[in-house]
Amino acid sequence: MSVKAQVRGIIFDSDTPAGHRFDVALIWLILLSVVTVSLESVSTIRADWGDWLYGVEWALTLVFTLEYILRIWSAERGRNYALSFFGIVDLVAILPTFLSLFVAGTQALIAIRILRLLRVFRMFRLVEFVGEGQQLLRALIASARKIGVFTAFILVLVICLGSLMYVIEGEHSGFDSIPRAVYWAIVTLTTVGYGDITPVTPLGQLVASIVMLSGYAIIAVPTGIVTSELVRNRDEELSTRTCPNCGATDHDLDAKYCKHCGADLNP
Amino acid sequence: MSVKAQVRGIIFDSDTPAGHRFDVALIWLILLSVVTVSLESVSTIRADWGDWLYGVEWALTLVFTLEYILRIWSAERGRNYALSFFGIVDLVAILPTFLSLFVAGTQALIAIRILRLLRVFRMFRLVEFVGEGQQLLRALIASARKIGVFTAFILVLVICLGSLMYVIEGEHSGFDSIPRAVYWAIVTLTTVGYGDITPVTPLGQLVASIVMLSGYAIIAVPTGIVTSELVRNRDEELSTRTCPNCGATDHDLDAKYCKHCGADLNP
Amino acid sequence: MSVKAQVRGIIFDSDTPAGHRFDVALIWLILLSVVTVSLESVSTIRADWGDWLYGVEWALTLVFTLEYILRIWSAERGRNYALSFFGIVDLVAILPTFLSLFVAGTQALIAIRILRLLRVFRMFRLVEFVGEGQQLLRALIASARKIGVFTAFILVLVICLGSLMYVIEGEHSGFDSIPRAVYWAIVTLTTVGYGDITPVTPLGQLVASIVMLSGYAIIAVPTGIVTSELVRNRDEELSTRTCPNCGATDHDLDAKYCKHCGADLNP
Amino acid sequence: MSVKAQVRGIIFDSDTPAGHRFDVALIWLILLSVVTVSLESVSTIRADWGDWLYGVEWALTLVFTLEYILRIWSAERGRNYALSFFGIVDLVAILPTFLSLFVAGTQALIAIRILRLLRVFRMFRLVEFVGEGQQLLRALIASARKIGVFTAFILVLVICLGSLMYVIEGEHSGFDSIPRAVYWAIVTLTTVGYGDITPVTPLGQLVASIVMLSGYAIIAVPTGIVTSELVRNRDEELSTRTCPNCGATDHDLDAKYCKHCGADLNP
Repeated sequence: MSVKAQVRGIIFDSDTPAGHRFDVALIWLILLSVVTVSLESVSTIRADWGDWLYGVEWALTLVFTLEYILRIWSAERGRNYALSFFGIVDLVAILPTFLSLFVAGTQALIAIRILRLLRVFRMFRLVEFVGEGQQLLRALIASARKIGVFTAFILVLVICLGSLMYVIEGEHSGFDSIPRAVYWAIVTLTTVGYGDITPVTPLGQLVASIVMLSGYAIIAVPTGIVTSELVRNRDEELSTRTCPNCGATDHDLDAKYCKHCGADLNP
Repeated sequence: MSVKAQVRGIIFDSDTPAGHRFDVALIWLILLSVVTVSLESVSTIRADWGDWLYGVEWALTLVFTLEYILRIWSAERGRNYALSFFGIVDLVAILPTFLSLFVAGTQALIAIRILRLLRVFRMFRLVEFVGEGQQLLRALIASARKIGVFTAFILVLVICLGSLMYVIEGEHSGFDSIPRAVYWAIVTLTTVGYGDITPVTPLGQLVASIVMLSGYAIIAVPTGIVTSELVRNRDEELSTRTCPNCGATDHDLDAKYCKHCGADLNP
Repeated sequence: MSVKAQVRGIIFDSDTPAGHRFDVALIWLILLSVVTVSLESVSTIRADWGDWLYGVEWALTLVFTLEYILRIWSAERGRNYALSFFGIVDLVAILPTFLSLFVAGTQALIAIRILRLLRVFRMFRLVEFVGEGQQLLRALIASARKIGVFTAFILVLVICLGSLMYVIEGEHSGFDSIPRAVYWAIVTLTTVGYGDITPVTPLGQLVASIVMLSGYAIIAVPTGIVTSELVRNRDEELSTRTCPNCGATDHDLDAKYCKHCGADLNP
Repeated sequence: MSVKAQVRGIIFDSDTPAGHRFDVALIWLILLSVVTVSLESVSTIRADWGDWLYGVEWALTLVFTLEYILRIWSAERGRNYALSFFGIVDLVAILPTFLSLFVAGTQALIAIRILRLLRVFRMFRLVEFVGEGQQLLRALIASARKIGVFTAFILVLVICLGSLMYVIEGEHSGFDSIPRAVYWAIVTLTTVGYGDITPVTPLGQLVASIVMLSGYAIIAVPTGIVTSELVRNRDEELSTRTCPNCGATDHDLDAKYCKHCGADLNP
């Protein structure tokens, strides 16, 4: 096996011991990088430890740059990797540090590096949480269209409610434009309720009360959608028997005959 | 086909290519109008772009007026259309702009135009989200009476709680009238929690704590109602065919043979 | 039929036309009384309409006093009525107005009258929402013990969390005593989030973040309990077939033989 | 039976009448201790009743110390008890009072005593809530891995969102470091919404709106997970017997005959 193939095995595979160790080390380095960027954003810490953090950041950037070059070089098709989702994320994650040499203020963009944490999921998928993750994902995808319709409805609703509250509350108490009023409607309907914008007129409070009570029923809808999908998922998951005639496996728990070919499931 | 029938086909049908294109164009114009009204409500933008936005608004109003006249003229029964829900919405959506010529301050009412966005749903219904939308709607309608009983209960509860807190908190900390205290109770029970009115006395905080913990169980009720309806929906979706042999009805959508007796479901 | 029996029929029965009309009238009077008390609590309205509202209140109090006397007199066992839940509520609802003649400041207690609104449910039960109300109630009662265990767990949790935050945040930012810190923990765990007390130290914010993320899973529990009860309820509700042999009715949808006696359900 | 065995029976067993009485008394003493610590933390109460509360606290500490010594002495293996979870909690619960004699300020740590309340659950488990508690626990444990994957996803999400908002909002309006911005993201996604940190720029409010609307779907996930586990639990509760004739397993708890073939389930 060529050096290139060996490097590729370590960098791109998670199944081999070496590949697994590389992935774990990478996750730790990314986490360290995220912690460094986070700490650097705290002004009191930056004042005391700024130079150290700056050093760690440059060291990690050089390591990630080396890793990026190795990926491009060792990938079966470097071009494909460079244009893939993770390829672009990997590039974008190292650019801000270099950019900050020429343009001031781009340092903060380094936070984008955090996106690399998504690699964690690629690892998880390969190691042990396969079943759970896929099940959740399947339920969310199956719910996607219902949730889409629901979101469209919510958007029209919050625009209508926001405009109504803008007219009612006038320009007092934070409802000083329709976009801000729509923002308030979203904050209220989702039951987040910051309290940075609240109705002060009696009529505004009445409308807000109706909105909140409706929100009670509305918040139940996405929960209902996802739950019923998960229940459905589970039911399908239970079908562990295989039809001796056609090999189908999606039988209900109480099935005695295959629903696809009519053969007896317990001959 | 007369010109009138052709116009009617374009305006009222969504099934024909021309009708579909008209509907899509209308949605975009309504969205543009909503954006215009929204931007105009932001004082900084109005200062700079007020004249432009005013022009766009008048242009759109004229287009919508023309559309309204065409609808009245081409509808099979113009009177029926004019008195229908969408007919009234369409009229009310163009009036404020004209009114603002004679009466100052009615400009803000133009926000009502946003209600026309509800047409989006008429389109959606006709195009592709039929199944999902209807399923959600059916679940909500089936839950309507349970949710009604629940809402009545909540209303009595928030009035009682509001009065109690008004007596406990006296006229301090925002609980200065029973309606405001009821507003607080709604804000708290729905877990929105603005924080514009909060209890300050120890007794008031104790009662509020009990309210919040009860709210835990209470918020579970509408979710439970909608979810169980959605699960029921799914179950019913399965049971539309009857086995000609044994009479069982709980067949999966893709079943060809009865799972209980193995008989052919479509002989 | 004696006058007493006729009066009793009107006052205590909701089944006869006269009794139904009496109940509806009573509900409206109670609502009017609640609105009067609510409006009187708003200082600006009290300033202008205080005398009118005072008059309406006294009139309603006299009507309710007359009703109370008639109930005592016409009840089959006046003593039983007087000591029943609604008997005590009815008495307590008229006392504050009379008390306010002798003791100042007891006026506010009139808000207790709102409890009489609970009669609404007695009516509802008798008229048309029987099924829905009972179903919800059954699901809640069936969930009661699970929710009890859950509430006990939550109480220990919020006391522990409150104490922890009291130690962490010191006496700054509102966490100035353990009871207040427990109040904060309840406000946070229930996702109400007023924001009247919020952590300001980094460590406090870290602990609060963990509390909120745990709250994600915790809030799912009561919803899960109620939902699974409602789903179970629904399943039982579906059993509309009667066993021709033993008369049992609680058959599953897919049952072909009675589970109690083994007889064929579709002979 | 030796004195040691008798003491052990009283202290460690909850099944015997004496043991049960001891446990109940202990719970009350712990609650009294928790109330004492809580009241002492309220400055106004401490000013008036400080000496009394100090006395009660020392008395309770001595009682708990005696109990601890008895536990060590009477336990079958004192060492095992001393190193068990409850052994450590019991020790840690009495230390702060003694420590406060030598070091000032450690008094507040007495709040740790509250952890002893967890004993309540040990009692509950032994008395009557067995079924409910175990069912909830089983559902939570069965959901643990799904909730783990979900939590990992949420953590990556809030770090990304926090960094994004830190870049967008600059250092205004509370988003003055990435950790604080992540704290905001958690407060928002969990719909707690304190309002201590809120976006003020239009772009920040737009992103926050998207976060909140996504939170709608996201909060549905843990609820769905727990609910579907509880529903599964209930289903499994039903299916513990197998029909000797046809092999079906989905029998109700009260079934005596197979609903599919009519065979006797307990021949």
